[in-house]
Amino acid sequence: MLDDDAERVRDLAHLGHVSLLTPDLDQTRHYFVGLLGMDVVEESGDSLYLRAYGDYERWSLKLTRSQHAGAEYVSWRAVSPRALRRRVAWLEDNGHAGRWVPAELGKGRAYEFEDPDGHTFRLYYETERYAAPDGKRAVIPVNVQAYAGRGANVHRLDHINLLAQDVRGCREFWEAGFGLRTYEIIQDSTGQSEVGAWMSSSIQGHELIYTQEKTTGSGRLHHLAYAVDTREEVLRAADIMADAGIYIEAGPSRHTAIQGFYLYTREPGGNRIEVANGGYLVFAPDAQPYVWTAAEWAAKPGWGAVIPPEFHIYGTPVAEVAHV
Amino acid sequence: MLDDDAERVRDLAHLGHVSLLTPDLDQTRHYFVGLLGMDVVEESGDSLYLRAYGDYERWSLKLTRSQHAGAEYVSWRAVSPRALRRRVAWLEDNGHAGRWVPAELGKGRAYEFEDPDGHTFRLYYETERYAAPDGKRAVIPVNVQAYAGRGANVHRLDHINLLAQDVRGCREFWEAGFGLRTYEIIQDSTGQSEVGAWMSSSIQGHELIYTQEKTTGSGRLHHLAYAVDTREEVLRAADIMADAGIYIEAGPSRHTAIQGFYLYTREPGGNRIEVANGGYLVFAPDAQPYVWTAAEWAAKPGWGAVIPPEFHIYGTPVAEVAHV
Amino acid sequence: MLDDDAERVRDLAHLGHVSLLTPDLDQTRHYFVGLLGMDVVEESGDSLYLRAYGDYERWSLKLTRSQHAGAEYVSWRAVSPRALRRRVAWLEDNGHAGRWVPAELGKGRAYEFEDPDGHTFRLYYETERYAAPDGKRAVIPVNVQAYAGRGANVHRLDHINLLAQDVRGCREFWEAGFGLRTYEIIQDSTGQSEVGAWMSSSIQGHELIYTQEKTTGSGRLHHLAYAVDTREEVLRAADIMADAGIYIEAGPSRHTAIQGFYLYTREPGGNRIEVANGGYLVFAPDAQPYVWTAAEWAAKPGWGAVIPPEFHIYGTPVAEVAHV
Amino acid sequence: MLDDDAERVRDLAHLGHVSLLTPDLDQTRHYFVGLLGMDVVEESGDSLYLRAYGDYERWSLKLTRSQHAGAEYVSWRAVSPRALRRRVAWLEDNGHAGRWVPAELGKGRAYEFEDPDGHTFRLYYETERYAAPDGKRAVIPVNVQAYAGRGANVHRLDHINLLAQDVRGCREFWEAGFGLRTYEIIQDSTGQSEVGAWMSSSIQGHELIYTQEKTTGSGRLHHLAYAVDTREEVLRAADIMADAGIYIEAGPSRHTAIQGFYLYTREPGGNRIEVANGGYLVFAPDAQPYVWTAAEWAAKPGWGAVIPPEFHIYGTPVAEVAHV
Repeated sequence: MLDDDAERVRDLAHLGHVSLLTPDLDQTRHYFVGLLGMDVVEESGDSLYLRAYGDYERWSLKLTRSQHAGAEYVSWRAVSPRALRRRVAWLEDNGHAGRWVPAELGKGRAYEFEDPDGHTFRLYYETERYAAPDGKRAVIPVNVQAYAGRGANVHRLDHINLLAQDVRGCREFWEAGFGLRTYEIIQDSTGQSEVGAWMSSSIQGHELIYTQEKTTGSGRLHHLAYAVDTREEVLRAADIMADAGIYIEAGPSRHTAIQGFYLYTREPGGNRIEVANGGYLVFAPDAQPYVWTAAEWAAKPGWGAVIPPEFHIYGTPVAEVAHV
Repeated sequence: MLDDDAERVRDLAHLGHVSLLTPDLDQTRHYFVGLLGMDVVEESGDSLYLRAYGDYERWSLKLTRSQHAGAEYVSWRAVSPRALRRRVAWLEDNGHAGRWVPAELGKGRAYEFEDPDGHTFRLYYETERYAAPDGKRAVIPVNVQAYAGRGANVHRLDHINLLAQDVRGCREFWEAGFGLRTYEIIQDSTGQSEVGAWMSSSIQGHELIYTQEKTTGSGRLHHLAYAVDTREEVLRAADIMADAGIYIEAGPSRHTAIQGFYLYTREPGGNRIEVANGGYLVFAPDAQPYVWTAAEWAAKPGWGAVIPPEFHIYGTPVAEVAHV
Repeated sequence: MLDDDAERVRDLAHLGHVSLLTPDLDQTRHYFVGLLGMDVVEESGDSLYLRAYGDYERWSLKLTRSQHAGAEYVSWRAVSPRALRRRVAWLEDNGHAGRWVPAELGKGRAYEFEDPDGHTFRLYYETERYAAPDGKRAVIPVNVQAYAGRGANVHRLDHINLLAQDVRGCREFWEAGFGLRTYEIIQDSTGQSEVGAWMSSSIQGHELIYTQEKTTGSGRLHHLAYAVDTREEVLRAADIMADAGIYIEAGPSRHTAIQGFYLYTREPGGNRIEVANGGYLVFAPDAQPYVWTAAEWAAKPGWGAVIPPEFHIYGTPVAEVAHV
Repeated sequence: MLDDDAERVRDLAHLGHVSLLTPDLDQTRHYFVGLLGMDVVEESGDSLYLRAYGDYERWSLKLTRSQHAGAEYVSWRAVSPRALRRRVAWLEDNGHAGRWVPAELGKGRAYEFEDPDGHTFRLYYETERYAAPDGKRAVIPVNVQAYAGRGANVHRLDHINLLAQDVRGCREFWEAGFGLRTYEIIQDSTGQSEVGAWMSSSIQGHELIYTQEKTTGSGRLHHLAYAVDTREEVLRAADIMADAGIYIEAGPSRHTAIQGFYLYTREPGGNRIEVANGGYLVFAPDAQPYVWTAAEWAAKPGWGAVIPPEFHIYGTPVAEVAHV
């Protein structure tokens, strides 16, 4: 048994690349390249592969033309080949068998499977490190790429928020199978269900978030976040987005959970994208998740802007709101 | 005649000290000293005199125990003794005669009068520059006082916002009599009245603001603002205020008018106090005010949090809301 | 007489456009457009006209191909046509007669003259306000142009520093003739001469600086500064410049005089350009300049990086260092 | 065997509390409490125990009156009791046996041993989480303590830098025995020795740094760093320290290694203390240390202030400079 000494599994290194779908690839490209400041590293048919200047892997985002917006898949990088095999064994031993998918543009073969809500995930280990060409090399050789200062100039992929009919089920899936740590949980008013869970494979406050699906849909994306280094850059991003005519749904302000500073926009294809900074680090190896009761959460302690109602309903692909 | 060549009067140097009333002097003192980081320079009976570390005058705020909160008076410093006499002459020649009041703790005698809404103002020229005692001297001798870093550590008095039944009347009073420049105006839905006006004696975007009084009151204070040097300090102030149990009414966020970054709190005595950063400077000598139609303003272009309804009604002293 | 009541002349509104010369117009253009984030509004022969997104005038910088780097001329905008005529009268009455030069791309005719060190200046009043075309309009109509977020994305022209054989002579010229206020002065070790003077037409801490010329040259430029809104943006600019291979001569750090946060680079044509933030505002109408003795200045109170020796010698056009 | 699958040991959770010695306990206390904004949680004889508001453990710093400044011991928290036993076993099996020391103010018993340079370290697992008393509770219950905003208001213990005669030996000790990851190494000019190594137990760029000892001393402290959340707070800290008369040795500026933003001061007892922000996170599980050649390092790519020579020699306790 892997965790024979009651220490948690630590086979995942970090959230990996994400594949998004968009009905308007040209405008979506402009958003990510011209406004977020990412680079296209490869184009192939109806797909683009992009990176932020600080992503150490060759790419962190795939965009594909599609009828609907949404996330095609989300991935995790394992800490070693052996860790990858261990996680696949767990999936297959626990009724979550998936399939191996071939390598894709510098990312090695991956094991594809679904979480309890039907979101597609991939696990991989092998990856190509980005090697900056002439003209994109940073002056400090430790940095993978020069800082171009284009638009919001996001630093790296940060976290993803998925919607789920059963937040608790999803949370327990990742805890049991992958050793993700949960840092905060919100209960519903009955105290029996959960409506939010913030999880991470590291000391970083959030890599994977589940929040309550309020439509009949499943496998939907709430938002994908790229990180900037300062709150000032989130504020700048708001100026850039507002003047570029991009819809700003919420922020800039600070979240109560994890306490990151946020700006939520919709990229022209419809996916909700966050420019994010911060959120706390959790150093305690024995930290327990903070569990908010519904009442405590509703009291909204601290400061932070009021979130509009649509923030809790809208996701991609767009789905019908469930009867309440 | 002074302005014989159609150049505007420039007899006012800057907004001067403000006198606030509070029903809870002890808690109000704690707010300004412990949380905003100001210093008490003198105590006298039921009054305290305070300064921010960057105020060049000895004090910028007087606090007096009273039954109700509110502003006792607001002042302007004139650019010269002659300028002071000229403005008094204008007041007396134009039906706004007031009276001279004696010197007060380092501020020379002042001419006291009322604006059209009944707010009390004072004009003065003579003032005592602050001389920091041992232990409070800044290492750079240009700075009037050491930077202590206590609480929000506000830098200097910034601006004041008064409520008025007749915003346009107040605006025209200051333009005609004192040469204040108006940088932004908001019209009501008829286009006949004004519900907001931002005015200044200098290139700074706002020193004196009038917004619509929505109660039967008059002479009321909307808020008094102290400035910090960065938006980061406004965000820090929110942490300080929230953890100290101070009511945060709005922000941190950015205003559409003048575009300053704000945090609105209520000091324990009930007066609304802003921690403010920025707002644009107006360099053009021939800048015209930007006039917002009600519809244009309601559309709320750009970003910035939703302001709660109470922000447009609450003021001090508290007054009955007018029938709508 | 205008200033019959001993109040200072206030006929200048602000530092106006500057014309720089460069031996490498293509690379200089790339620096100002791609790295500083300015826009070219017009090209004409060997000249380009540029603006920062926050300049209210159509342009603030002219770049002209030339054999040597340097400043062709510096300008001031007067507060009114009458103010312009008054200043011309003063120049002609006091032995500084110059000549009228024709309008140039939206700037009205100007009076050209020299300061005591031989720098060319122009005074003008008429100017064309920038009208943003489709695609460059800001969402808040008060803002003259959309915030593009390209490179350092400088906000507006801020100040200029000229070298002078006789700093005191230059300072007294502007005080006597134009009412500029001097906020700080550095004396030499004899106390008889001055080696630095920071002057302004407004409450802004510095628009025109003179520092000691240490070569046999005259009429030379020390640096031209564009402003950004935060210190964070100065730090970002350093990342952008370093990774773009631009020579960083000093900073990011804070100056002792005026206390602005700075980054000094050399644009590829050789002119020293500063990305600047802040510096204090001076509200007191009767503020006296702070006079640093050489010893006090040498003690370097406060914090701030050590400035390299070349900073005190290099200027454009390049000149021979005087025998010491 | 623990690491039978070639994955690294991950038994350390984070750098733990540090015990500093000071010849001037009163002034040192004022520095940490009044200027850095830490709280004293306990006093005992000639010792004080302090915490930053974000430390989840009860305390992170012990100060003890002593004849000389320096670090009495440095500690690491293990991820579990079993991890603690495993590391002790490794020490005893590899010739580094130490001894168990009793529990100390909420920290469980610890195993004390020395690194190859003679610095004393402790390993522990058990620890008391801080429980804020009334008046110090944060409004968001996830936060361990209210944000007081006193002085630099440091957030948490960040990293420590020790001097070592044999940097490589120390680095290899921690890699072999504890699985620390090394993110950057500087070689000397021969390429045979190392003069700097930056190590961490997590994705955080640096927890333990070794740099070259240039005196005959051993077991000396270079500096201890507390973290703030923004570069702006480092800049504020410089204002606070300068006006309080504290010696600022270097910064604010940015380091080339790990790229954190720094301010170095000497607390009144003589220990060098850093107020630090940032430094990169390392997400790649297979990241290799970047090895700087002496020449490459000397070229100082990127930006950042010149470090004064004393920075490379001074440490505590003070020692004689070795003959060169």
